[in-house]
Amino acid sequence: MMGEFELIRHYFAAAACARAGGDVALGIGDDCALLALPAGEHLAVSSDTLVAGVHFPDPCDPYLLGQRALAVSASDLAGMGATPIGFTLALTLPAADPGWLSKFARGLDAMAAGCAMRLIGGDTTRGPLSMTLTVFGRVPAGQALLRSGAQPGDLLCVGGALGDAAGALPIVLGEREQGTAEAAALLRRYWLPQPQLALGQALRGKASAALDISDGLLADCGHIAAASGVLLCIEQQKLPLSDALVRFAGHDQALQHGLTGGDDYVLAFTLPAEQLPALQADGWSLHVIGHVAAGTGVQLLNADGQAITLASQGYNHFSG
Amino acid sequence: MMGEFELIRHYFAAAACARAGGDVALGIGDDCALLALPAGEHLAVSSDTLVAGVHFPDPCDPYLLGQRALAVSASDLAGMGATPIGFTLALTLPAADPGWLSKFARGLDAMAAGCAMRLIGGDTTRGPLSMTLTVFGRVPAGQALLRSGAQPGDLLCVGGALGDAAGALPIVLGEREQGTAEAAALLRRYWLPQPQLALGQALRGKASAALDISDGLLADCGHIAAASGVLLCIEQQKLPLSDALVRFAGHDQALQHGLTGGDDYVLAFTLPAEQLPALQADGWSLHVIGHVAAGTGVQLLNADGQAITLASQGYNHFSG
Repeated sequence: MMGEFELIRHYFAAAACARAGGDVALGIGDDCALLALPAGEHLAVSSDTLVAGVHFPDPCDPYLLGQRALAVSASDLAGMGATPIGFTLALTLPAADPGWLSKFARGLDAMAAGCAMRLIGGDTTRGPLSMTLTVFGRVPAGQALLRSGAQPGDLLCVGGALGDAAGALPIVLGEREQGTAEAAALLRRYWLPQPQLALGQALRGKASAALDISDGLLADCGHIAAASGVLLCIEQQKLPLSDALVRFAGHDQALQHGLTGGDDYVLAFTLPAEQLPALQADGWSLHVIGHVAAGTGVQLLNADGQAITLASQGYNHFSG
Repeated sequence: MMGEFELIRHYFAAAACARAGGDVALGIGDDCALLALPAGEHLAVSSDTLVAGVHFPDPCDPYLLGQRALAVSASDLAGMGATPIGFTLALTLPAADPGWLSKFARGLDAMAAGCAMRLIGGDTTRGPLSMTLTVFGRVPAGQALLRSGAQPGDLLCVGGALGDAAGALPIVLGEREQGTAEAAALLRRYWLPQPQLALGQALRGKASAALDISDGLLADCGHIAAASGVLLCIEQQKLPLSDALVRFAGHDQALQHGLTGGDDYVLAFTLPAEQLPALQADGWSLHVIGHVAAGTGVQLLNADGQAITLASQGYNHFSG
């Protein structure tokens, strides 16, 4: 008979990522974990839920799921420019399957090591498969990357290729075969997104606004536009699309994925133009895809600078 | 068409508890919330999941559910002696029902006001009804109430009557009628637990170990015993049982509820005997139910001081 506590202790507390240390004064095993923050730093907090059949296919490889779940949540820390500390895992399972838990914990552990994050606590409950990860980071007071600081004249940039994860969906769902190199590349982007934590920290004090793209470029640019009270102009032909995506999906569908597909977890940010050269000199791979103007909302421009009507604003839960 | 973001903004961001201020430097609406901690304080963090049909009946009154969900989570802060700051809400719903959301948000808001907590962020997803609340508090470094400090010779105490919530379960599940004053009293304890936040803070620097009773007295005392490496001796006749519970369930069943029933969310703690008079003089209603001895585990003693065999160790998810 293995109870909730034994479960957590056995499969998660034993994981390398569960060791206390650094900013974690007390880890798993008491009513609360305790975090110590350096003076002058704020704690950044974000909670994300993944539901089986909604946010990931069920069944799926628990190792990949563990990796992806933490990457998705850690990406919110990247969007704030925060230095990662740790996370709590609230895991709801239909049954306690040791094989599943062991693989899931190893996947989680691999991503935690890559992000320098520690598992500091959580909850294990019985029910339909889902999980909520709450991630913690720290950022010097006043230096967090908000959505609200974009100014007319700023450049609009993204931190990497767009649309790969959306392009991978037909493969993830088993609707297309995965035997090609392109399919493998897209699947990696879906299952193993790389939260741009280092880029986020490099943008502190430089970017005027930032977020991580989880709902699709258009929808997420809409969030910056609304929070900042500006117009974001996106030049469609500047969208970075991977060769794998264009070969796999064709150019038109690749462009659609890049505009509205979610789940890439690369940063979108606005940047005063004078900040660009130093960031490029430091070796950051940035893609300037447009600019900020006076106005409201998001405008998509074709190669002639003409506005294109927007048919879709990206993915939204509960939307009709 | 109302998307995820509109949902959260509409029903939760408008709630009184969603205002930034105090230790909340940035609330709902960005990638992360930001918390500021006073120098010399640690952040206390805990995540709890409630699943429909497992942790609460479905359907149920969403106002009561909102109140109870936050109370259950805030109780972990009480168990650490932490001063509450705020919480994130990750809410998974089968459909976006404005009436349900409005009532749930008002219940949550009522408990947040009672606990002086702010809603700082979260996530809204589609799926089987469940919710994960992550709560945040602060506690002076080194003063958190851990489970690991109980010493032989300490008194074992609880902060209030035990077993009422377990006694209410047949009413909550509709198996017994709720027309009596006793039933109403028990139902209040189930739906409206009062996290003992003030008591937790009063015990800082006094209690040697503490937790909130969520799994039942015997199981939770087992956690203190294991973490502290001691034996906890409980004198059965000293268990505080409410008149309502004894009248409703009978003495034997009431005692069983008090020993193994969960969900009361009162504190259990160990206390050097010399600390007791000052706490009592300050008006805290404490119940001494036993003592700490050298050894391991939990021992239940009858009125003659004889050990009683323990048939059950309380409620555990996934237990056979």
